[in-house]
Amino acid sequence: MTTHRLYLSVALNSTGSAARSWAAPGTRWNRFADWNHYLRSAQLAHEGVFDIVFVSDHPALQRDNTSRPIHSFDPTVLFSAVAATVPDIGFLLTASTSYNSPYNLARRLATLDHISGGRVIWNVVSSFNPDIAANFGAAPLPERAERYRRAEEFLQVVKDLWLSWDTPAGPAPQGALWDETTARRIDHHGEFFDVAGPLNVPIGPQGHPVIAQAGASDAGIDLAARHADIVYASLLHKQSAFDYQARLRERALAHGRDPGDIRLLPGLTVILGATREEAYRKHEALHGRRGEDGLIADFLRRNWAVDLDARIDPDVPLDPALFAYTEDQKRPVGFVKSFAELAAAEPVTPRQLVRRVEGGHRLAVGTPREVADTILDWWSSGAVAGFNIHIPVLPDGIAEFNEKVIPLLQEAGAFPTAYDGSTIRERLKLPDPRSR
Amino acid sequence: MTTHRLYLSVALNSTGSAARSWAAPGTRWNRFADWNHYLRSAQLAHEGVFDIVFVSDHPALQRDNTSRPIHSFDPTVLFSAVAATVPDIGFLLTASTSYNSPYNLARRLATLDHISGGRVIWNVVSSFNPDIAANFGAAPLPERAERYRRAEEFLQVVKDLWLSWDTPAGPAPQGALWDETTARRIDHHGEFFDVAGPLNVPIGPQGHPVIAQAGASDAGIDLAARHADIVYASLLHKQSAFDYQARLRERALAHGRDPGDIRLLPGLTVILGATREEAYRKHEALHGRRGEDGLIADFLRRNWAVDLDARIDPDVPLDPALFAYTEDQKRPVGFVKSFAELAAAEPVTPRQLVRRVEGGHRLAVGTPREVADTILDWWSSGAVAGFNIHIPVLPDGIAEFNEKVIPLLQEAGAFPTAYDGSTIRERLKLPDPRSR
Repeated sequence: MTTHRLYLSVALNSTGSAARSWAAPGTRWNRFADWNHYLRSAQLAHEGVFDIVFVSDHPALQRDNTSRPIHSFDPTVLFSAVAATVPDIGFLLTASTSYNSPYNLARRLATLDHISGGRVIWNVVSSFNPDIAANFGAAPLPERAERYRRAEEFLQVVKDLWLSWDTPAGPAPQGALWDETTARRIDHHGEFFDVAGPLNVPIGPQGHPVIAQAGASDAGIDLAARHADIVYASLLHKQSAFDYQARLRERALAHGRDPGDIRLLPGLTVILGATREEAYRKHEALHGRRGEDGLIADFLRRNWAVDLDARIDPDVPLDPALFAYTEDQKRPVGFVKSFAELAAAEPVTPRQLVRRVEGGHRLAVGTPREVADTILDWWSSGAVAGFNIHIPVLPDGIAEFNEKVIPLLQEAGAFPTAYDGSTIRERLKLPDPRSR
Repeated sequence: MTTHRLYLSVALNSTGSAARSWAAPGTRWNRFADWNHYLRSAQLAHEGVFDIVFVSDHPALQRDNTSRPIHSFDPTVLFSAVAATVPDIGFLLTASTSYNSPYNLARRLATLDHISGGRVIWNVVSSFNPDIAANFGAAPLPERAERYRRAEEFLQVVKDLWLSWDTPAGPAPQGALWDETTARRIDHHGEFFDVAGPLNVPIGPQGHPVIAQAGASDAGIDLAARHADIVYASLLHKQSAFDYQARLRERALAHGRDPGDIRLLPGLTVILGATREEAYRKHEALHGRRGEDGLIADFLRRNWAVDLDARIDPDVPLDPALFAYTEDQKRPVGFVKSFAELAAAEPVTPRQLVRRVEGGHRLAVGTPREVADTILDWWSSGAVAGFNIHIPVLPDGIAEFNEKVIPLLQEAGAFPTAYDGSTIRERLKLPDPRSR
């Protein structure tokens, strides 16, 4: 089902999606710790009429000290400063249901939704990483099933809190500012949480923040089907997108939702060149490599901890056994599952794979025309509502995308030239939660 | 000991310090939920060259529905938006050690310290209110001693995290962005918390946020003496301020600190009139009252739940037994202790008391000259470093204070006419924590 227009978000993580983007020529290496860097990136995204800026999250310093620190500033605090300064654009931020309390997180997101005038989207994740767990006490990591039960309960509590206090927009009430009909206790008592409510922040401009989810496991898809307005899956093949959508629609119907209310926005890393060869050389340079073999060696080592040696022919399709996963593995399912789906759809050699996947997301490397065409192809065929664009080097890569790709999408009539809708919910044409 | 100049902060809670400020003539009643109201208030505070804007906090909707909801927006998210827009001024925000995790709070405050360019002050509180507890699970409220042990450990973990990751300001490092000497694990294992670290936010512009504390109990004063740079006690009598300072100095010395590094900024509610009589009538009107007897009746009912009737003569000094408290009572000690100290210093009738105390803080009600003189008297005698000003009706009350009182303080040479210091730590002349 094709949405009336293409939607685009852009990731503002750190210095860019390329691990070595901190050292890119002409950039300040430590700009990840300078909020003006994020402000500048968001301003460029606004110039490009992007619908959304996005940050993922990881509340721990990562182990790889040669890569940019992909997460540093707290997303709610960072985006609040940006929201005060940059109009129109939506703010998709990640926060975990594992190491927050529902009341505090509901309050922070509601505060940001007020400040931004209804532009907040919460990307709901649960945490499985032992480095994160070590910053929040010695409790053992729960199994996936428990994490998702907690996420489900957390999300329900947060949504109930968000709709718990109505303040009328009209003239001052007589005597009391609220009573039990306008500020309702939620009196939640569940497996993980006991929360009385009401929230001390009134209902915001868009009812409550929009919900995003990226789960790829069965439990993740079920959570998305119940709650998500936006889904950020990793999808490497168009057929995978159709298959994923079909599963999501089926589950959404089973939960009594209209599947047309869910927007699928998979990740897409974009590397541009005047010619495809130039884009390929740029791709290699981003990895600090000359030539394709270096990319292949990096890819194999990073994803499967195997060296490119005599046993692996870069021009022979990869053994599908490399893509084994189980629904209950301790690592996230999404990225390996998307590899498996790609390999099932067509034989793929290491040489092909490195030009089609980057940082776990689908890669479009080529000319602006080629990149625009693949975006338009997926969108116009109804595979997706749009993409979450990953830019290798921030902030300048956004300016390049604005200049070279956005006009092609606008000429095709797929992408707007100005902002519409007063909230991100209106822009995404999502139902108002107050009417449910 | 007199500081080289007077310091002033101003509270930006809700629609003002007066309970009925939401309904004040010429104001929008629901501006407490409009972030532009806080922005406007902060801009006015900046015009007045106030050193600091302050918010207290209470993560629950209060019970009294006729009073403005004194706390709504999350302080870190609110002040981040303000910091992006208003330069120079410091941001003192309250966050509890009872219902946060040290890693998350350290990260949010460090993020805000980067965004604001080193202007953050954390007011450390612990929570004892059952309405708050009900929003964070059914666990029983801990005793004061346990709350303070937790606060002490929480604060130590947060300070260690804040200094855990050095990023050099110079040219890009070779190869790795950090190692175990620049990003240090803290490996804290204590009674309440296990936190590995390092924090994933580098050390900020002022080393780390300044610490404020308002504890009045023995445990509170001890925490302040160990950690606080700013102390916000409730002090109703100048002699109490000297006595408090003496106790604080003694404890600070015992903990190996220089007592001259602690700034005492008690609360001061200000109500201005062209004459004292006009200010008195304004005071009564803020309570929705005509005449002093209404104020007295309100005061007795609010503070001791007793009615003004034949048994209480408003012109006879109050029975000191009304001010009884114990160090281990379940309610905060500060406000009742400050009453007790006032009554011990001089006999005080109900009629006198209502003109000297407002919302638990010292009240200055009178002409601009009278208000400026009492501020200058306390400061120049060395009783305090300055005051945290409570304005009955926001935002206009700040403009009035700017116009009428600030020039008198400037003419006296006590208060600056422009901002100095690039961080709030520099402005307060506090030591850099990196040098400890």
